Amino acid sequence: MTDTYFVAVDWGTSGFRLWVIGRDGTVLDSTTAPLGMSRLKRNDFDRVLEESLDKLGIAQDVPAIICGMAGAAQGWCEAPYLCAPTRLDALGEGAVSVRGATRNVHILPGVKQMAPANVMRGEETQIAGLLHAEPSFAGTVCLPGTHTKWVQVKDGAIQHFETCMTGEQFAFFSQTSVLSHSMILDGWSDNAFRSAVRLATQDPVAVPRRLFSIRADMLVRDQDSATARATLSGLLIGQELMSVVHYWRDQSVTLIGAPPLCEIYLMALDVLGVGGRSLDVETTTLAGLAAAFHIQTGTVHA
Amino acid sequence: MTDTYFVAVDWGTSGFRLWVIGRDGTVLDSTTAPLGMSRLKRNDFDRVLEESLDKLGIAQDVPAIICGMAGAAQGWCEAPYLCAPTRLDALGEGAVSVRGATRNVHILPGVKQMAPANVMRGEETQIAGLLHAEPSFAGTVCLPGTHTKWVQVKDGAIQHFETCMTGEQFAFFSQTSVLSHSMILDGWSDNAFRSAVRLATQDPVAVPRRLFSIRADMLVRDQDSATARATLSGLLIGQELMSVVHYWRDQSVTLIGAPPLCEIYLMALDVLGVGGRSLDVETTTLAGLAAAFHIQTGTVHA
Repeated sequence: MTDTYFVAVDWGTSGFRLWVIGRDGTVLDSTTAPLGMSRLKRNDFDRVLEESLDKLGIAQDVPAIICGMAGAAQGWCEAPYLCAPTRLDALGEGAVSVRGATRNVHILPGVKQMAPANVMRGEETQIAGLLHAEPSFAGTVCLPGTHTKWVQVKDGAIQHFETCMTGEQFAFFSQTSVLSHSMILDGWSDNAFRSAVRLATQDPVAVPRRLFSIRADMLVRDQDSATARATLSGLLIGQELMSVVHYWRDQSVTLIGAPPLCEIYLMALDVLGVGGRSLDVETTTLAGLAAAFHIQTGTVHA
Repeated sequence: MTDTYFVAVDWGTSGFRLWVIGRDGTVLDSTTAPLGMSRLKRNDFDRVLEESLDKLGIAQDVPAIICGMAGAAQGWCEAPYLCAPTRLDALGEGAVSVRGATRNVHILPGVKQMAPANVMRGEETQIAGLLHAEPSFAGTVCLPGTHTKWVQVKDGAIQHFETCMTGEQFAFFSQTSVLSHSMILDGWSDNAFRSAVRLATQDPVAVPRRLFSIRADMLVRDQDSATARATLSGLLIGQELMSVVHYWRDQSVTLIGAPPLCEIYLMALDVLGVGGRSLDVETTTLAGLAAAFHIQTGTVHA
């Protein structure tokens, strides 16, 4: 059996995911738990990590490297932001050693941008993973999620980035707002989605008045749930795309995120005649954590 | 003491407000309760109305006229929509008599629009009240609220209208979304509001990427809660204004709504050099209910 080398952790707002990495770079084991920053106090992090590793039989001399919200001011131990533009190989150098932790634990910094103000924690590590696999990559990376990031990468560095709250807005409109009454049944319509993306990108200013129409279309025209859901998604993503038009115009987009969400973004970009590809988010995160670990420890990349 | 003539009720989604009207048109008494359509089953409406009137000592031979969501399909008794364009004096003729009610109860219809699809229930009665006071009124009426309505009125009729979900969105962003962490303290800044309205109206397409900046501005620049709240409001209202630009460009706007909300909308319109005035929503609603009651009963206006 391969020796255990280190533990990599993506510790976010709502949960964390942990991988045990061998000396040859393979994943020996992994686990996940719904114990994100928002549910933990500062003193809880060490216990949660040790209990998880204890169950997997990992000795206390195995070091851990962590990315994500565990490094926020209200997380385990604040890892100050790097300031964009910033090279991604600086992540390992910027790693903060957690004092008082049971084992050797380092947390990677996030990235901030002063003007316009913006922050990320976690996405920078995924981009580091992309650059590890493709060191000369230059172009736009989109990381769709609760808070979708659009990032311009060049010369091994994050040049600038934008955040749109599209995922959080979709959840609100579809689950809580008055529109939720029109989406009680699930379902999805590619045609309705494409049509809404077209509407929103041709006339983004109209989106605010088109949202309530989703409800009205059900009341006066019996529009079905699948059409309503896909229309909402298309309007919001279309509006987002126009807001970050300088990130995708005349270039292909590299997506890193949950596969179903990447599919939807690729479809929206396709409506606009823009090409794209989607990368596996787990592979990318792991590669970023491993690259940062090797820089932080001064060892050679696996 | 003046004889009791009829009871007027504005029965909405979250609550209802009831006024007892005398033969000379004066308000003899009033009450309010948090018992809106969303908290009631069909069989509850009669009981809630009778219990309220019993407490006020109103005899069962006094008729009632109701506007709002009590007339929705999921309300007390469906009052089918009038279809815009529609004259407002048709509200009384369209009133539906509630079968099986303890007293003589009529519910006013809402108004629907087929293309683009839209619906209102309650606002049409307020506009009827405005037209009762100013029969030759023509122009734009804005009724700000959870779902703000923009209505074009001409020839005593609703010509067309739009709905923006700005109020519901503001509540979500300020109370639930990640932005809420930047608005834990209350407060308001007129300067920040005006500045955000200016930004959003000059570049409405940028609003989706500017929203998260409210959070980032707090994290990287210590922006205060008052600035954050007012900026959010200004971005959302500015975005709404650009979405309905054809309703206010080159004309003054008549606002009907809660006074603090009307103030904010007047300030936003002022940033754009647009004049406006605000009318008392209670007076307007009552005037609309009274006008409809007189038409429904074939009596002369008080």
